[in-house]
Amino acid sequence: MQWLTNIPSAADIETAHEAIGPHIHRTPVLTCRAIDALSGAALYFKCENFQKIGAFKMRGASSAALRLSKEQLKRGLATHSSGNHAQAVALSAKQLGVPAHIVMPEGAPVIKRAATAGYGANIYTCANTLEARESTLEEVVEKTGAAFIHPYNDYNVIAGQATCAKELLEDVEGLSALIAPVGGGGLISGTALSAKYFAPGIPVYGAEPERVNDAFRSLQAGSIQANSRIDTIADGLRTNLGDKTFGIMQAELKQILTVSEEEIVSAMRLIWERMKIIIEPSCAVPLAALLRYPEPFQGKRVGIILTGGNVDVEQLPF
Amino acid sequence: MQWLTNIPSAADIETAHEAIGPHIHRTPVLTCRAIDALSGAALYFKCENFQKIGAFKMRGASSAALRLSKEQLKRGLATHSSGNHAQAVALSAKQLGVPAHIVMPEGAPVIKRAATAGYGANIYTCANTLEARESTLEEVVEKTGAAFIHPYNDYNVIAGQATCAKELLEDVEGLSALIAPVGGGGLISGTALSAKYFAPGIPVYGAEPERVNDAFRSLQAGSIQANSRIDTIADGLRTNLGDKTFGIMQAELKQILTVSEEEIVSAMRLIWERMKIIIEPSCAVPLAALLRYPEPFQGKRVGIILTGGNVDVEQLPF
Repeated sequence: MQWLTNIPSAADIETAHEAIGPHIHRTPVLTCRAIDALSGAALYFKCENFQKIGAFKMRGASSAALRLSKEQLKRGLATHSSGNHAQAVALSAKQLGVPAHIVMPEGAPVIKRAATAGYGANIYTCANTLEARESTLEEVVEKTGAAFIHPYNDYNVIAGQATCAKELLEDVEGLSALIAPVGGGGLISGTALSAKYFAPGIPVYGAEPERVNDAFRSLQAGSIQANSRIDTIADGLRTNLGDKTFGIMQAELKQILTVSEEEIVSAMRLIWERMKIIIEPSCAVPLAALLRYPEPFQGKRVGIILTGGNVDVEQLPF
Repeated sequence: MQWLTNIPSAADIETAHEAIGPHIHRTPVLTCRAIDALSGAALYFKCENFQKIGAFKMRGASSAALRLSKEQLKRGLATHSSGNHAQAVALSAKQLGVPAHIVMPEGAPVIKRAATAGYGANIYTCANTLEARESTLEEVVEKTGAAFIHPYNDYNVIAGQATCAKELLEDVEGLSALIAPVGGGGLISGTALSAKYFAPGIPVYGAEPERVNDAFRSLQAGSIQANSRIDTIADGLRTNLGDKTFGIMQAELKQILTVSEEEIVSAMRLIWERMKIIIEPSCAVPLAALLRYPEPFQGKRVGIILTGGNVDVEQLPF
């Protein structure tokens, strides 16, 4: 596979899917009659909480790593992340037998540090600012020659994230819409591309907390906007967009739906109690959006991506 | 189907399975590499937390209801229960279009009352003693003519619970042992019968909290023993055995393994965090037992029944 420097084509996504197949789980699609009854729609939940490392991030990290040349790969993989992407890069490196170099900010959850270290990654601690993360990463990359895998603003990562909606569209016939959460935009832009290529005409909705509605405002303004606050329980969605994800979103997305913190917690609880599965708060945002704005989805089959299940059971919002 | 007055035969269990098929889910079997690595065994988890009403109890209630004559059935179903069995009887009655009469003690969790009422059952509140439950039930049965469905000490119920292990044995080849929790003994005796008929020679282990080790002591003593304390987090396992379940257990069970409260919470957390599924504390007892007594299971394929997922997320032990 070649390293992608343009928006992934249908063939690029198909190639990525084939390549990462042995490195990921094909996750199940679950349904729940009780939530269908509440929503007035037939919902198909793509369960990336059952993915390796507990989140869809494994797809993008694996997809990017497998596009590196053998020479590049030998020198290892690097990234900065306090969350699921760190574990995804660490496990991808382990699967490929190369070193992983992960920059994590001070104060990152102990459980996530431990999980990343558990995959054999070298961990570099830095101050908890974007500047410190980027400068520390730069030093690490310079020293080791490792390839930086961006958490979202990279066409190789986006091609990997796109495989999630591709599987959902393959496994469920007749879907009328897809909804996924929006953080940095890697998943939503991959989802939009897969819908465009593999189920043309299906609208793709992004779902975002009101408190970090940077994507909503960015699409309205026509340029990438930042968040002035990040105090949302949906900790995976605090990130701003990148130019690559924003470009795809501008071209392909139907709409961004925003929801309150209360709506997120309530949707999360609904999934825990009715579906008996563990999802992160960020995952609950699409269902919260559908319950708040039910009109376009009434009587339709709707695909929802449940992005991950890595939650600290000692810090629950209930 | 005839009402069973003897220990269910293989044919009885097969008939029950066919009859309840449209009324239950065939639940999935999940695996988890991380827990396999910890345990030294290959574990196959039968996920009854995904069963209708969130627990295996649906099998037994449905099995018993479907063996009633049309005349009996018309007068409805009755039981006393504060938990999953109440919901199972209520939903079975709803599925069959007949009334349900459920006696629930004062102080039963609001969420369980609401769920039972949500299936359209008539709820009768009584004092929180076994005597009050039994006398109230007797009045209700006398007044309504409804058929009493015992939560466990009934061959018709046991035949239904046996279908869970039957499915597990059908879906996973080469299992070397089965482990299920022990409360009143309905599930474990059904499991033991299915192992005997459908995979002869496979040992079946019961798992029980040390604090309510009545089954362990009953098998040692050769007679049904009571619990002197019921302060276990595994709230589904506080019940004493009945003569019918005890008889089958005496004949068919390999051994009862007991575990501490800390071991139960730790195994529950392991399943939540690693498998991303929600299980009740009672469900975690078999895994806790396997981790405490690993020797007989090393390198083997072991089936574990995860009995239910109805847990109050505001009252977690973490």
